[in-house]
Amino acid sequence: MISRSNEQYHAAMRVLAAYIEQQLPAINDFLARETDKLDPLVRPAAAHVLAAGGKRLRPVLAILCARALGHKGEAIYPLACSLEFLHSATLLHDDILDGAVLRRGKAAAHIVFSRTEAVLAGDVLLALANQLVASYGDPRLTTCLSEAIMRTVAGEVAEIVNTREMDSSLETYLHIITGKTAYLLEASCVVGALLAGVSDELIKAASVFGLNMGIAFQIVDDAMDYTSASSVSGKPAGGDLREGKLTLPLIYHLESLSPARREALLSDIRSKALSEEALAQLLADIQSSSCTERARALAGEYAAKAARALEAFPESEERKVLDCALEFVLQREK
Amino acid sequence: MISRSNEQYHAAMRVLAAYIEQQLPAINDFLARETDKLDPLVRPAAAHVLAAGGKRLRPVLAILCARALGHKGEAIYPLACSLEFLHSATLLHDDILDGAVLRRGKAAAHIVFSRTEAVLAGDVLLALANQLVASYGDPRLTTCLSEAIMRTVAGEVAEIVNTREMDSSLETYLHIITGKTAYLLEASCVVGALLAGVSDELIKAASVFGLNMGIAFQIVDDAMDYTSASSVSGKPAGGDLREGKLTLPLIYHLESLSPARREALLSDIRSKALSEEALAQLLADIQSSSCTERARALAGEYAAKAARALEAFPESEERKVLDCALEFVLQREK
Repeated sequence: MISRSNEQYHAAMRVLAAYIEQQLPAINDFLARETDKLDPLVRPAAAHVLAAGGKRLRPVLAILCARALGHKGEAIYPLACSLEFLHSATLLHDDILDGAVLRRGKAAAHIVFSRTEAVLAGDVLLALANQLVASYGDPRLTTCLSEAIMRTVAGEVAEIVNTREMDSSLETYLHIITGKTAYLLEASCVVGALLAGVSDELIKAASVFGLNMGIAFQIVDDAMDYTSASSVSGKPAGGDLREGKLTLPLIYHLESLSPARREALLSDIRSKALSEEALAQLLADIQSSSCTERARALAGEYAAKAARALEAFPESEERKVLDCALEFVLQREK
Repeated sequence: MISRSNEQYHAAMRVLAAYIEQQLPAINDFLARETDKLDPLVRPAAAHVLAAGGKRLRPVLAILCARALGHKGEAIYPLACSLEFLHSATLLHDDILDGAVLRRGKAAAHIVFSRTEAVLAGDVLLALANQLVASYGDPRLTTCLSEAIMRTVAGEVAEIVNTREMDSSLETYLHIITGKTAYLLEASCVVGALLAGVSDELIKAASVFGLNMGIAFQIVDDAMDYTSASSVSGKPAGGDLREGKLTLPLIYHLESLSPARREALLSDIRSKALSEEALAQLLADIQSSSCTERARALAGEYAAKAARALEAFPESEERKVLDCALEFVLQREK
């Protein structure tokens, strides 16, 4: 799966970009049509958060998996878009959680709109996602979605709890990112497979692919938070560090310290006691170490698991695009 | 349905109370078991809001309809309790909406807990409700619940919009209360009927019963807001008036005014320009008028529709209890 050359990587990105470009009009049309039906009170907040996400990774994954496994026709779009609505709902509610620690760095809905709009728009999008999936009348789809919602919320809860408990184990980190990110990417792939009506074995392959891709995705996201002032997320480099989030580069850095220094640093991060200078120094230390490369290497292991699962899919154009998507997740720099 | 004497009313209340008392242990056990499984971050907020609701009207209605239509056994409890979780989720999120106008008067979760807890506990309870219903594997149940969620949230949105738009028409009022309250009571009755596996005709009867009972319930609730400092809701009399909510007693009062005075009063209520004295006087005016009695009379019309729908149910002990529940909804004084 991992391209050997820069040229191969760019070729893969062109394949992926072409597919996304081809699918975006139908996805964005559906999202816009449903958003237009919302009450004017919540529509701007919903439109705001939906406008922020460009790649539509979750709908695209659902469409790719459905198509790769033989599903034809337009029936995939409401299902695929329900995942984007669900994702947007969690972003809206994230924006309302209190304290700088708990906010995402992006142009925040709680500033552009009021809390009322953000709470209710999130609830409406959650309800809409449920309704869209229920309209298929397939209990496996509704079960898949309802479990993904529960696990995603539980992952967000676990992340917040850990900004208080500061458990810097790899196990806790993987538990958090699996919850808050990977389950929804898994569900995106599984609902596509379910709609295609394939064997349990292929559904399992879609599940393993999506889950491991999701873990890799979040690890790379967290590594990039240390290396790039992202134009995508709107965060300056080191945003997670400022918010007291224990992500993988910081966890690797903590492992390199003596127990005493580790405890002292954890305590300072937790209580936000680090000066601007100390934060900048810590960020520079992590950037100049191998911590982010090690994080990307671990992401590579999960991506490799995802790639192996994908081999169970029959050969198709879409399977190739899924492979390219995996590569994008792993190699992206912003 | 409407008792002719005080004695008959009290006899009906004893029948209802006995049934609720008999069902509460199983309901509360299930609610507590599921709440105990929640993450410690969100558990206290969830437990707080669940502890506040004593009668468990929604689960009891689901159980009564299921039993009245022939369903036996324990399978009803997760379904019945999903409605209480859903109701609790909306209460938690209501507490976060900004400004005094938009809050309920009760001991507020946003004071006892932080916004973070209230947002996430609400999301978790919504997810839990979905998961419980999905576990039945019946698309009609998931469709019913997902529509009820969407309509309930839309009703809350409509109520908030109207504290800005101040449309004092009866039509808008009925639209709002049907959304925020009646659809969930309707869903409570319908899921019970669906689980009992009865004819479409009986499902429709359960729907008409629940919807009209729900409208009557909210009208009486709104009338009581003017007449009693409720120990149940924790609100002083006139809380809705202070919050700028256009409920039925106020709507009837506005109808009695000249157009000019009506517009002036609406404008003052909207902008919260009324002094404490003016508010107290307005409250006294409405209390001494026939506005609350007229509201209760309209509730009686909806209750009568509900009672007629109930006649389609086969005769049973539970049908009698449903009739008593209807009477309770209509006649309660606090």
